[in-house]
Amino acid sequence: MSDIHPSAIVSPKAILGEGVQVGPFCIIHDNVILGSKVKVEAYCELGIKTPLSDGGALVIGTGALIRSHSTFYESSVFGEGLVTGHQVTVREGTVAGKGFQIGTSSEIQGDCSVGDYVRFQSNVFVGKKTIIGNFVWVLPYVVFTNDPTPPSNVLLGCTVEDYASISAASVILPGVIIGRHALVGAQACVTKNVPANMVVAGVPARVIGEAKKIKLRDGSDRSAYPWTKHFTRGYPNTETSTWSEREGEE
Amino acid sequence: MSDIHPSAIVSPKAILGEGVQVGPFCIIHDNVILGSKVKVEAYCELGIKTPLSDGGALVIGTGALIRSHSTFYESSVFGEGLVTGHQVTVREGTVAGKGFQIGTSSEIQGDCSVGDYVRFQSNVFVGKKTIIGNFVWVLPYVVFTNDPTPPSNVLLGCTVEDYASISAASVILPGVIIGRHALVGAQACVTKNVPANMVVAGVPARVIGEAKKIKLRDGSDRSAYPWTKHFTRGYPNTETSTWSEREGEE
Amino acid sequence: MSDIHPSAIVSPKAILGEGVQVGPFCIIHDNVILGSKVKVEAYCELGIKTPLSDGGALVIGTGALIRSHSTFYESSVFGEGLVTGHQVTVREGTVAGKGFQIGTSSEIQGDCSVGDYVRFQSNVFVGKKTIIGNFVWVLPYVVFTNDPTPPSNVLLGCTVEDYASISAASVILPGVIIGRHALVGAQACVTKNVPANMVVAGVPARVIGEAKKIKLRDGSDRSAYPWTKHFTRGYPNTETSTWSEREGEE
Repeated sequence: MSDIHPSAIVSPKAILGEGVQVGPFCIIHDNVILGSKVKVEAYCELGIKTPLSDGGALVIGTGALIRSHSTFYESSVFGEGLVTGHQVTVREGTVAGKGFQIGTSSEIQGDCSVGDYVRFQSNVFVGKKTIIGNFVWVLPYVVFTNDPTPPSNVLLGCTVEDYASISAASVILPGVIIGRHALVGAQACVTKNVPANMVVAGVPARVIGEAKKIKLRDGSDRSAYPWTKHFTRGYPNTETSTWSEREGEE
Repeated sequence: MSDIHPSAIVSPKAILGEGVQVGPFCIIHDNVILGSKVKVEAYCELGIKTPLSDGGALVIGTGALIRSHSTFYESSVFGEGLVTGHQVTVREGTVAGKGFQIGTSSEIQGDCSVGDYVRFQSNVFVGKKTIIGNFVWVLPYVVFTNDPTPPSNVLLGCTVEDYASISAASVILPGVIIGRHALVGAQACVTKNVPANMVVAGVPARVIGEAKKIKLRDGSDRSAYPWTKHFTRGYPNTETSTWSEREGEE
Repeated sequence: MSDIHPSAIVSPKAILGEGVQVGPFCIIHDNVILGSKVKVEAYCELGIKTPLSDGGALVIGTGALIRSHSTFYESSVFGEGLVTGHQVTVREGTVAGKGFQIGTSSEIQGDCSVGDYVRFQSNVFVGKKTIIGNFVWVLPYVVFTNDPTPPSNVLLGCTVEDYASISAASVILPGVIIGRHALVGAQACVTKNVPANMVVAGVPARVIGEAKKIKLRDGSDRSAYPWTKHFTRGYPNTETSTWSEREGEE
């Protein structure tokens, strides 16, 4: 049984799993598949038809929470456990893994790929063709661009490898690759590839050292990076148990 | 005949052209004139009354597409072919030409002027009294400011001349003039006027060369600027046909 | 008597003062107390229940104007005269004084504290545990961060002292204190504390002089700072009358 608010407009063609909740003033279009226990809060519109898609459905995995005033187009697939903030916009053709968190007012444009357990904070802008790995952190107001000479017809998406962290208000230029376990400082303008395990900062961003030399600010003498050695909040045990086994890896 | 969703609230005083579509949960206030074939998607509110206007109508030209959760005040005039993203906010007293595209979450404050065929990507913020020419490109998260010593009662709007491009996350300081066919790099802080056909970058932004020396990243050896020599997507032939005639102009 | 639009959904448990107006398609949850003459525009949702709160109510003081598409959680308290822009998001546990203005698309995360007569312009992001004093100005796209080594469990909120101004698109790093009557330049990355009455600018931000040496751009020869000597717009006389008495203080 689903729990659909009487003011919501839900297409009879949409496929809703067990225990789906749809809030007031929502609109669910034809081409939408919601897994079991998905909760859609007020004023969300899901499955907007687009001429840029191949007609694929919007698929939202089990247990998602989509917060109010969010907008999803058809032709994207999200794994289980998606959580969004408010006013999130997702255009066509995005494929994301499980446990994806997207902060308030973030926007994902078309043809992006996102791994498992990725966390975007607020107002992250993800241009077309961006590729994000697993366990990546993207802090508020980060912008992933894709046009190296605007305007042009060249689209060079950015790539972020597993476990990388990108601090607030940084801009990643077209085609840049941010390496595994790298750290991008706040308000950096990243014009070149960032090597794995390194820190970059500045406008334009330059390598300023190894991430492992940064200490946690908790009074301990521990390294802040790789962060997988001290931070596991919100990840399932099945994932984090392997992190400690790889203690000396990075 | 118009196509008004039964949940929409449309003032009988609003003037709707032939073939207007108004989506679910929209609100169209008294002082609104929608041209023929305008499409307003869900959760939009048009024509909010404001004490800062002279009571002029909100006029939306023929064929506009206003995407969901957008908000327009009264007393602005948009030419034909307006296209907005989601969650766009437009305050009072803006006058814009035809073919204007405004990206998701962008905001235009009062008393701005925008030419023909201008394209804003997402999250562009346009302070009061900004003047934008024709065929200008503004990329995501660009901010046009206007108060040189905040807070004060001095308002110095920015000016952007025809064909200029402003890359992602740049900030344009009060009163700055960006010249015709100029290029502002990503995350620049533009504190001084930018000469025509030049590139600026950095915080604060400095001239780093002529735009025409930047090559397209498509494997050709062509200049990326002036972009009118290689990019015409989405513009009408009537406009772009004259661009090639002026091939050697810039 | 309140004026509730028939399409709004208002809990009978919510407490509404005299002359409250609630617009179309609003949702007011159980745990909400609205002072007299509060106006809530369309598509707002107030009082979302959160597991992160102690169950305290959302309290909105007398005479507030909450603009459309805004979202407030339970367990925050706002003094009289709150004014928001559109699409504002306020999470749990915020306490703010009177006369607070929050611009369009701004977001306040949990456990923040805001003084009296603070003004945020558009798209201000306020991370958890930020502390803002009285009469502070925050311009568009400013980001207050709180995690010094993302991701971690260390939260170091920023502090902004009375009368400080923070210009557009600046980022304030975790734990930074911005002194009384200080000025942060546009697009600064503020990594260290800012002394009272000083100006900082750049990435990273450095002290570039005393604020009082900056002249107003109105043709006079007056100092722009402390701004309380020339700017009083919108503040009550009861506040500004004491500013002139302290003319020589700063």
